[in-house]
Amino acid sequence: MFEAKLPNASLLKKIVDAIKDLVNDAPFDCTENSMSLQAMDASHVALVALKLENGLFDMYRCDRTINIGISVANLTRALKCANNDDSCMIRYNDEGDTVLFTFVDEKRDRSQDVTVKLMDIDAEQLGIPDQKYSAVIEMPSSEFQKTCRDLAMFSDSIVINATKGGVTFKATGDTGGSTLVYNSSASADDEDSGKIFFEVKEAVNVTFSIKYLNHFAKAASLSNRVRLSICNDVPIAIEYSIEDNGYLRFYLAPKIEDDQNMD
Amino acid sequence: MFEAKLPNASLLKKIVDAIKDLVNDAPFDCTENSMSLQAMDASHVALVALKLENGLFDMYRCDRTINIGISVANLTRALKCANNDDSCMIRYNDEGDTVLFTFVDEKRDRSQDVTVKLMDIDAEQLGIPDQKYSAVIEMPSSEFQKTCRDLAMFSDSIVINATKGGVTFKATGDTGGSTLVYNSSASADDEDSGKIFFEVKEAVNVTFSIKYLNHFAKAASLSNRVRLSICNDVPIAIEYSIEDNGYLRFYLAPKIEDDQNMD
Amino acid sequence: MFEAKLPNASLLKKIVDAIKDLVNDAPFDCTENSMSLQAMDASHVALVALKLENGLFDMYRCDRTINIGISVANLTRALKCANNDDSCMIRYNDEGDTVLFTFVDEKRDRSQDVTVKLMDIDAEQLGIPDQKYSAVIEMPSSEFQKTCRDLAMFSDSIVINATKGGVTFKATGDTGGSTLVYNSSASADDEDSGKIFFEVKEAVNVTFSIKYLNHFAKAASLSNRVRLSICNDVPIAIEYSIEDNGYLRFYLAPKIEDDQNMD
Repeated sequence: MFEAKLPNASLLKKIVDAIKDLVNDAPFDCTENSMSLQAMDASHVALVALKLENGLFDMYRCDRTINIGISVANLTRALKCANNDDSCMIRYNDEGDTVLFTFVDEKRDRSQDVTVKLMDIDAEQLGIPDQKYSAVIEMPSSEFQKTCRDLAMFSDSIVINATKGGVTFKATGDTGGSTLVYNSSASADDEDSGKIFFEVKEAVNVTFSIKYLNHFAKAASLSNRVRLSICNDVPIAIEYSIEDNGYLRFYLAPKIEDDQNMD
Repeated sequence: MFEAKLPNASLLKKIVDAIKDLVNDAPFDCTENSMSLQAMDASHVALVALKLENGLFDMYRCDRTINIGISVANLTRALKCANNDDSCMIRYNDEGDTVLFTFVDEKRDRSQDVTVKLMDIDAEQLGIPDQKYSAVIEMPSSEFQKTCRDLAMFSDSIVINATKGGVTFKATGDTGGSTLVYNSSASADDEDSGKIFFEVKEAVNVTFSIKYLNHFAKAASLSNRVRLSICNDVPIAIEYSIEDNGYLRFYLAPKIEDDQNMD
Repeated sequence: MFEAKLPNASLLKKIVDAIKDLVNDAPFDCTENSMSLQAMDASHVALVALKLENGLFDMYRCDRTINIGISVANLTRALKCANNDDSCMIRYNDEGDTVLFTFVDEKRDRSQDVTVKLMDIDAEQLGIPDQKYSAVIEMPSSEFQKTCRDLAMFSDSIVINATKGGVTFKATGDTGGSTLVYNSSASADDEDSGKIFFEVKEAVNVTFSIKYLNHFAKAASLSNRVRLSICNDVPIAIEYSIEDNGYLRFYLAPKIEDDQNMD
């Protein structure tokens, strides 16, 4: 028996919107303390990791560890039925082949039940090693989204360069190029000011596929801020915090390009 | 001679938007008291009935009963020219082959004449029998629109079930399904509160094609509320009231399906 | 060396949006006093003339007359990177093969460099003869845009008729037609009132391709008002003033049609 109630269906809508172009099959792992999800994208290049701690829920009950496999397309369809302010109850009875979502608009005594067929998913839980990163950049998530969208006009690749003196995002193509320059970090005090904050232990120069970053950047609706953790030759970790009781993280390996060091 | 002036062209725009995907040819019947229109959709499944009483008009003059046949595509084009706040004069001279719409923005001394060619339409006026319905449901028109849109994700058919205890709208498909449940009716006092109101004399369980309901639901811009009148084995009547001086009604026969009674 | 700084990148964005569907290659002429541009559309029917006087710039320095040729597609891409409130520095070093745009958001210490490759453009500067026009019509640019869009539903051609008594815009097609009538001119006092202003020395009746007028009308975002200068058998001049320190003008020759005088 698994039963959990989110105060607003909008949270789940935003999560599903953020991952639906990356992940086809979502194997949710439900334990006593949290719902979580780990999945590679269809081309096995990017990793998505979601954690929703029970603190996010109005009610949370999970008798034993269970795995609920759902097609993201079916989940998207179900959540389209919910109004943002509806509460969202999720119910799964052991041995059942469906999960039941109930969206309730309490003001108007209206409730909508949506059943979604479950599916078997080969859920290989990947161990994500604890990584020390050379640099951490925290910025408004809308600005990260705009940066990825802008640079995608010039190239398939983005070069992120971080030194103690500044952070740049750069893309260069045949007809021109663009470089975004941040010369100074916000202090810890004004992290919420819309400014960028960065801390660089060792200089980093890494190249990524912009296509994937553009996918990740859709999670901007989940959180005002995004945290990029980078290190030479190591996957970037891009984290959107979820109301301090969970996160949506994306991992992507850097591109190894001959010309990377020339930039 | 027919001459009539609507205070706002927006009313006609909304009506035409609501029917333009259903009806190709619009045979308007103009009498001393009202303009009306009755037309089957192209596949002869649904019936559209419109009535605009002369109380809706600032000026209304109709010397004798006349029939004005207009292509809905041409009418749509004409009305696109009107600003919502423009007044709308409609003029037809007996024996003419065009109807003239004049949109006037009085504040700015701007007037726009649009002529639309008439067409011959085989206007078989269908007698719509007076029907006693077993159940009447009145709900916000935006909510009816959302319900039809949601359920269309799961199936081609919608089952409406009404009993004294509640009303449900239901659709079931291969990957899941959705059921909307309304457990209590608003009282007559708070009909305008955004709540659903229902009155059920006899239990009803009827199935309809969602595709058509989705078409009808576009009339939501005409009125905040919609009234569904249902009865087993009888066409549903879906009515949008027009400023208490007219209506736009849709009729659709139920689907006869083997599995209908199984739901 | 050419260096100039606009207080807001939005001005350049609007200009490029207005011409990008007409002009592929933009040969900018920079002199001590202004940046200007003259280009025919791809089919050599319409002429675009832009003038940005140095008064529009926060800083403007041009050592000698230079020509900067830019692909409008590349310029569009560069400007998409700018936020509307960013300042926009334009820099060109003599003998360089790129122009550098720097967009700065000073509040957030964020700057974005975009380089655009230059191109050789055969810039034949056309002499535009000083023309006395028979009639001048000044109207809200949004209304001119709507008029062109409306009439395009009925025909490829628009007939503009101006007499001392009024101005009409007319299009006629197979299924109907539309005529916009302005019976009185605003007085000079209320030119900004959203009304049309016209001054007619000699009656004019001219026909133009609506397709081109629709392109020109996109410049509505540059200025609230547009000025049409017309004369029989002479190209129309359509001018959008830019903050009283420049303009964007379009010229288009009238259509010579047998039936023109019949309308």
